[in-house]
Amino acid sequence: MEFGSDNNAGAAPEIIAAIGKANDGPSPSYGSDPIMDRVRDRIRALFEAPEAAVYLVGTGTAANALSLSVNCAPWGTVYCHPNAHAETDECGAPEFYIGGGKLKLVAGGHGKMTPDALAAAISDTPQGDVHAPQRGMVTLTNLTEAGTAYSPAEVAALTGVARKFALPVHMDGSRFANAIMATGSTPADMTWRAGIDILSFGGTKNGCLGVEAVVIFDPAKAWEFELRRKRGGHLFSKHRYLSAQIEAYLDGGLWLRLAAHANEKAKRLADGIAALPHVDFIHPPAANMLFVSMARAIHRRALQSGAHYYLHPFAASLDGLDDERLDARLVCSWCTTDKEVDSFLELIRDQG
Amino acid sequence: MEFGSDNNAGAAPEIIAAIGKANDGPSPSYGSDPIMDRVRDRIRALFEAPEAAVYLVGTGTAANALSLSVNCAPWGTVYCHPNAHAETDECGAPEFYIGGGKLKLVAGGHGKMTPDALAAAISDTPQGDVHAPQRGMVTLTNLTEAGTAYSPAEVAALTGVARKFALPVHMDGSRFANAIMATGSTPADMTWRAGIDILSFGGTKNGCLGVEAVVIFDPAKAWEFELRRKRGGHLFSKHRYLSAQIEAYLDGGLWLRLAAHANEKAKRLADGIAALPHVDFIHPPAANMLFVSMARAIHRRALQSGAHYYLHPFAASLDGLDDERLDARLVCSWCTTDKEVDSFLELIRDQG
Amino acid sequence: MEFGSDNNAGAAPEIIAAIGKANDGPSPSYGSDPIMDRVRDRIRALFEAPEAAVYLVGTGTAANALSLSVNCAPWGTVYCHPNAHAETDECGAPEFYIGGGKLKLVAGGHGKMTPDALAAAISDTPQGDVHAPQRGMVTLTNLTEAGTAYSPAEVAALTGVARKFALPVHMDGSRFANAIMATGSTPADMTWRAGIDILSFGGTKNGCLGVEAVVIFDPAKAWEFELRRKRGGHLFSKHRYLSAQIEAYLDGGLWLRLAAHANEKAKRLADGIAALPHVDFIHPPAANMLFVSMARAIHRRALQSGAHYYLHPFAASLDGLDDERLDARLVCSWCTTDKEVDSFLELIRDQG
Amino acid sequence: MEFGSDNNAGAAPEIIAAIGKANDGPSPSYGSDPIMDRVRDRIRALFEAPEAAVYLVGTGTAANALSLSVNCAPWGTVYCHPNAHAETDECGAPEFYIGGGKLKLVAGGHGKMTPDALAAAISDTPQGDVHAPQRGMVTLTNLTEAGTAYSPAEVAALTGVARKFALPVHMDGSRFANAIMATGSTPADMTWRAGIDILSFGGTKNGCLGVEAVVIFDPAKAWEFELRRKRGGHLFSKHRYLSAQIEAYLDGGLWLRLAAHANEKAKRLADGIAALPHVDFIHPPAANMLFVSMARAIHRRALQSGAHYYLHPFAASLDGLDDERLDARLVCSWCTTDKEVDSFLELIRDQG
Repeated sequence: MEFGSDNNAGAAPEIIAAIGKANDGPSPSYGSDPIMDRVRDRIRALFEAPEAAVYLVGTGTAANALSLSVNCAPWGTVYCHPNAHAETDECGAPEFYIGGGKLKLVAGGHGKMTPDALAAAISDTPQGDVHAPQRGMVTLTNLTEAGTAYSPAEVAALTGVARKFALPVHMDGSRFANAIMATGSTPADMTWRAGIDILSFGGTKNGCLGVEAVVIFDPAKAWEFELRRKRGGHLFSKHRYLSAQIEAYLDGGLWLRLAAHANEKAKRLADGIAALPHVDFIHPPAANMLFVSMARAIHRRALQSGAHYYLHPFAASLDGLDDERLDARLVCSWCTTDKEVDSFLELIRDQG
Repeated sequence: MEFGSDNNAGAAPEIIAAIGKANDGPSPSYGSDPIMDRVRDRIRALFEAPEAAVYLVGTGTAANALSLSVNCAPWGTVYCHPNAHAETDECGAPEFYIGGGKLKLVAGGHGKMTPDALAAAISDTPQGDVHAPQRGMVTLTNLTEAGTAYSPAEVAALTGVARKFALPVHMDGSRFANAIMATGSTPADMTWRAGIDILSFGGTKNGCLGVEAVVIFDPAKAWEFELRRKRGGHLFSKHRYLSAQIEAYLDGGLWLRLAAHANEKAKRLADGIAALPHVDFIHPPAANMLFVSMARAIHRRALQSGAHYYLHPFAASLDGLDDERLDARLVCSWCTTDKEVDSFLELIRDQG
Repeated sequence: MEFGSDNNAGAAPEIIAAIGKANDGPSPSYGSDPIMDRVRDRIRALFEAPEAAVYLVGTGTAANALSLSVNCAPWGTVYCHPNAHAETDECGAPEFYIGGGKLKLVAGGHGKMTPDALAAAISDTPQGDVHAPQRGMVTLTNLTEAGTAYSPAEVAALTGVARKFALPVHMDGSRFANAIMATGSTPADMTWRAGIDILSFGGTKNGCLGVEAVVIFDPAKAWEFELRRKRGGHLFSKHRYLSAQIEAYLDGGLWLRLAAHANEKAKRLADGIAALPHVDFIHPPAANMLFVSMARAIHRRALQSGAHYYLHPFAASLDGLDDERLDARLVCSWCTTDKEVDSFLELIRDQG
Repeated sequence: MEFGSDNNAGAAPEIIAAIGKANDGPSPSYGSDPIMDRVRDRIRALFEAPEAAVYLVGTGTAANALSLSVNCAPWGTVYCHPNAHAETDECGAPEFYIGGGKLKLVAGGHGKMTPDALAAAISDTPQGDVHAPQRGMVTLTNLTEAGTAYSPAEVAALTGVARKFALPVHMDGSRFANAIMATGSTPADMTWRAGIDILSFGGTKNGCLGVEAVVIFDPAKAWEFELRRKRGGHLFSKHRYLSAQIEAYLDGGLWLRLAAHANEKAKRLADGIAALPHVDFIHPPAANMLFVSMARAIHRRALQSGAHYYLHPFAASLDGLDDERLDARLVCSWCTTDKEVDSFLELIRDQG
């Protein structure tokens, strides 16, 4: 009963197999491998973006921080949701890579910035006033950290605001596949057609070992990205093992099948929870992450009976009043089973 | 006939197998995996350093730059050999991670700093003068970039100089295994017993997919290292796949066997070359990298007949006078074969 | 009728005279001038802090950013009020000098953080979680940017919270003299006795040409401060002209007399405004800055009749409905005259 | 007998007077003062560069580091002479402001890079190789740190090399006036006509209190410079006192008269020294700085009899063999007197 994180899941067998298959003698290093050539073509085709620059890195934090650093000057302001990974979970990587930028938080329910709040936050940053940090760029997360999904129209509404202020927009897609499956949109519709300039296209959480693609729709920043990647220590010498993961990930739509699986298990879980009057959803279920609130006693029973997931905030304690309500995040992955879901539902079925 | 780089080699089958074996259901993420617990113990035992802090990252540049950043203030000077990877091949990663440090080059033949040159370079940095960059730390590379190996005594001579000035010392051991095999020393004798404070213990070049261990002999800097690793985007979520590589790498002395293989093939190659009066060694052969000088016509023949290796400098051209001499680096790896060696020797046997 | 900023005021004649007097032949440079020796002693005596380190720089932004950089790691969080100069008016200097830190805003009325809000903000920063930016330090501004003054007891309440979390505290005292006069406290009571670790002790706004002293009560960080000052380009070669300003500033209590003057003129202005029912105070008057709200028509009349001050926000326009209320800041300086005050009061006396 | 540094000299009376004159009531702050408007026009006229952007800062290190930071990417290489101030005397300010750049030293006698050495150094930096730091920019110092002066033709030879590689060129002109007087060239001929893109135009060493102008001949970088200046804490609130210094400095050619005075006194000193067979010039005298070598006993006598100057290196000691030769730098300033020169010559006249 693993609902802690899609990072706790292993890798899909197809990905592991691809690693082994790529291990076939010498190969050019540092991104010159022929698999990367195929990956680049494949991603360009998938995103209907024949000019896009495509780069691979090992972690989502690297993908995000590098993406921000090529789009935001050191004195720039990055607009993001208060629970963006870049704000809360990267130990200041954006500020480090940008060279001292500032993240400005843009409110909005269920993990989504609203266009009005974004417009207000940008307007609130003085334009052309040398004393203040300047307007920089926007980053939004899809799938959001609340488990909800921006539709392409919602993305376009935000990028429209950014465009009005001539700001570029990054999408943190560490769970991009889950968002695509949740919305039924195409990669192109969700990104550049909706105004996205640069995308962190996640692989790790959705069944890879450790690889994220950065897709730069306007390749003018490509060389700078390469330099920053190298300088950040994120250019892999035996790069083919990153390429091989992404190739297998895209092959035959595996990335979508894995995400569909995760979303479906979460749907099964959500349906079960919806039938339990003593468990509430904090955010509306949409993809593979659920946020629920229930009594401490139920959490205690579930966690002590073998379920694994995280309370929110992390500091929340199982010690305390039985009927005090505690929040939790439940994440399904590409390998969550019906049995896990059903066993968990069984554990939380009863209020007492 | 692959002699371009040990980065062009694939991964050892044992390492690939370990990746697959680690893929067995959910596992704690971000370095909390049980394999990492075993790796930490194993490395501590191997280095006879029960207090050492051990961390894994994906690239050698990350290992080096992070190691330097925890030992050198932004205004510090890093003393290194002119052909140190940190100076020539990391696109300024040390300066980026340190926050603006300065690398000061310390001369010495065959890739080795001499203690006198090091003492002079440090002395030449004014002590306590606020106007000048300050003395910071020393980094040395073993196996050196010239393919030679510092003995523990040579390392101790350099760290002795550093110690006299109260400076910490880092060892870039991206080819540590080759140096250990070349010198017959133990990991402890080569590092902390010889005065090394922090080691980049390479795995990638010697048969791993992409993993380097950082071994911090004085663990006072451990937490800062963790923060810098995360902030640099180098903390892997599915960390077990790094851990698994290192575990297999150490298991049964695989790391030494792989390096022994590479060194032996280079020895076979060196012996063959020594018999050819028209090919000269630029640096004395010691481990798995040879540096040779021979006529352009011979290079042309070799490279056009299927041998792969790099001329030095990279800009050197096959176009030009036949008998002009060009330098080249020849690298053997864990999977170089006798046949490759012998075929190459055949190609360069004749002067004409 | 200059109420725009105490930065628009000139320098006190005593300060100008001191510059001329210091211009008496050769003098050691870069802070080794004998005037600086006297200044150091004088400031130590004034603050009853015989061990304090004292440094001079040319701007308040430099004083603040350098002070923060020696107390906060690159991954640290600086807790400050939303309208702190460091947040709004330094173009990201803190983040630049810190090497990428994060400013976290702590709410509170009238420019003052509340201890509860501070405790909550610090608590809200996860402790020891490598994924998140870490707890770093606290900076508070006294006189506040709302023109109010923290009492020593209020300062101590905030530093008490910081101390509970083992965080150092900086005071931005660009208007320190005005705060001292407003509260009637001593420099020692307002700073180290109230738990302040490092102070930007302003001179420029209160009658100097361009000089701020940084007073470090625990001198352990002194050498690092010196290096960062030099490296930031803030160590003046002809340093004696900074020293001379501060010497004259302290001589015979000039700094207090100048601040008393500014505060008294603001009091006269506040008393006049209090009698006008159509003008409201946004923040309670306390020292030399007033924040008022009145109808656009009145602003228009005042500004077009020769008064100079700034609307809030800067983007506010005189074009618009006559009776819409606009906010403004009114600053008195060491050289504001009764006539200026009275003329301005005359301009805004009538509502129509 | 002050020959230690032109930084030890005071300020010219005209400059002091201008400070007092600028102190005439309120004035717009942060560079919006009307004196600055006149200064900008004056400098544009002086340099025959009507489009140039002009900014003032308080120190030479700030002028240099900011100038480099707008012309060099964080991964760029700055080519400079080994004794450039940026390399030896700024505690890493260039690397700090650039965000981690690398200074590469270009040899040349008497403080001057040679075009061939510059071309070799740039060529030696691999072009378009992501692994290595990139080519960035060139900075040269005129007057050089060896007291020699590049002629406009010599400057053009160096900028010609830079231009061939498409690199911008900065001139550190902390003693620009001395170089202009030494060469008899015009400001325009010495700078943009000779291919200089950005100039640190020194005031402090030549009779100001503390002000340097940065002249950006291509104003495309102007706004970035303004942001970096603010962010570095180098935008003065009471900016008029910087403006007033420069206005007086330029007024009636004061800057040239002051430099002419310094150069003439150095000429008198050099002529006297040339007649002493036991004193050698290390660098050929050209402007206001002389570098000489003479026996320790003579240094001892001179320094102990009231002369003030610095031995090279700073660590050199008066204790030791009498007839061992020690190097020294002798600097004349705008206020050096014939009497100082003659008294010093008297002190070193005799060998014994």
